[in-house]
Amino acid sequence: MNSLHIVSAFDIDLHYLSDKLAAMGGQAERMVEQSVAALVANDTVLARKVTEDDRVLDELQRDIDDKSIVIIGKRQPMASDLREIIGAIRIAADLERVGDLGKNVAKRVLAIGETVQPVRLSRGLVALSELALVQLKEVLDAYASRSVDGLSAMRDRDGQIDSIYTSLFRELLTYMMEDPRNIAPCTHLLFCAKNIERIGDHATNIAETVYYIVTGQQMPVERQKDDRSHALSPEFKK
Amino acid sequence: MNSLHIVSAFDIDLHYLSDKLAAMGGQAERMVEQSVAALVANDTVLARKVTEDDRVLDELQRDIDDKSIVIIGKRQPMASDLREIIGAIRIAADLERVGDLGKNVAKRVLAIGETVQPVRLSRGLVALSELALVQLKEVLDAYASRSVDGLSAMRDRDGQIDSIYTSLFRELLTYMMEDPRNIAPCTHLLFCAKNIERIGDHATNIAETVYYIVTGQQMPVERQKDDRSHALSPEFKK
Repeated sequence: MNSLHIVSAFDIDLHYLSDKLAAMGGQAERMVEQSVAALVANDTVLARKVTEDDRVLDELQRDIDDKSIVIIGKRQPMASDLREIIGAIRIAADLERVGDLGKNVAKRVLAIGETVQPVRLSRGLVALSELALVQLKEVLDAYASRSVDGLSAMRDRDGQIDSIYTSLFRELLTYMMEDPRNIAPCTHLLFCAKNIERIGDHATNIAETVYYIVTGQQMPVERQKDDRSHALSPEFKK
Repeated sequence: MNSLHIVSAFDIDLHYLSDKLAAMGGQAERMVEQSVAALVANDTVLARKVTEDDRVLDELQRDIDDKSIVIIGKRQPMASDLREIIGAIRIAADLERVGDLGKNVAKRVLAIGETVQPVRLSRGLVALSELALVQLKEVLDAYASRSVDGLSAMRDRDGQIDSIYTSLFRELLTYMMEDPRNIAPCTHLLFCAKNIERIGDHATNIAETVYYIVTGQQMPVERQKDDRSHALSPEFKK
């Protein structure tokens, strides 16, 4: 952190923000881990727990937003300290969305209930979610250490997430076409996969904010979205 | 706007933000209108145009973020002016997401291509998107006039959006079960409907920020998400 503070009360304020953000990060990670565990195991008890945990993140975000505004008003920060605070507001917003996405996955678990799921599907979803969780942990570490070193690896991993998501999308379509009884549960799984892919996107957003906090610059080279699921349909024309 | 400014240069800065946000709002509305028009008419030329327009919103958001930070550093705003600026940052983020969602709808139009779509489907999608657009226009008006009067009507409309989305979801499932050739195109339409429903959500987020800017308080009563599509599956158990 910047050592040129006029008063140490400012340090205390900035630490407050960092700590709250770390708490949000930990909570968001837990919600993603648990919602995916619930999905793979069809564990409706765990899924219900996750849906209730979302409130914690909403409150933490509100806290960070309110405190940021108070700090800006009281301390009148400049330059890098201001980036820290604006960065905290943005990261808190991304983490709150990650929690929502985890909750949505959990809700779909409750919906899918006891329908039969093909085993290979679980592997694709597990792979997808493991990558998304790695993204989240890596970026939260990058934020904690205020380091941009791991960020290009994140870009690669984001590309892998998109590839796996596209494959999973195709796979689910085939199950749906094989047997109409698969349609409803596979539709829910499609949305789960999409939610998990979006968790990865939010991790990448957070990476861009970390880069901005540390360097004062926007991250170079526009991130290409590589979700090719849009490109599937031409094969399925009438 | 608050008339107690120390220097009129501050007024100029705040107007800059408002103007940029109005430009973002107009652009976001246009993208949503055009992507839905493209969807209903299966207009791939229009769809392609929409995907290219998304850049404008990204640049406007970046501009608002950067300018907000400069203003905070230079003017050291207090209280309601600070809420204006933080509010601008948040609304810009929501509008950038609205543009992304419009672009995603447009991309799915490109994917769906020339597949046959049942007529009744179009009516459900049109109803959904008309409501979402009204939400967007209403909330941008509320922001422009810094008024909280229309915000409870927005809550009702959000409930309607969720109901229509749930019905549309059911309808699409029935088409998918009737004929496997409907599965791929209907899956894309499901995602379109979801994206449009989320545009409505972002409008509601913006409403909460407008409320905060005007009153300094969080909007009362937690918004209940009423998307019942999660609750469909029990009927489809094996």
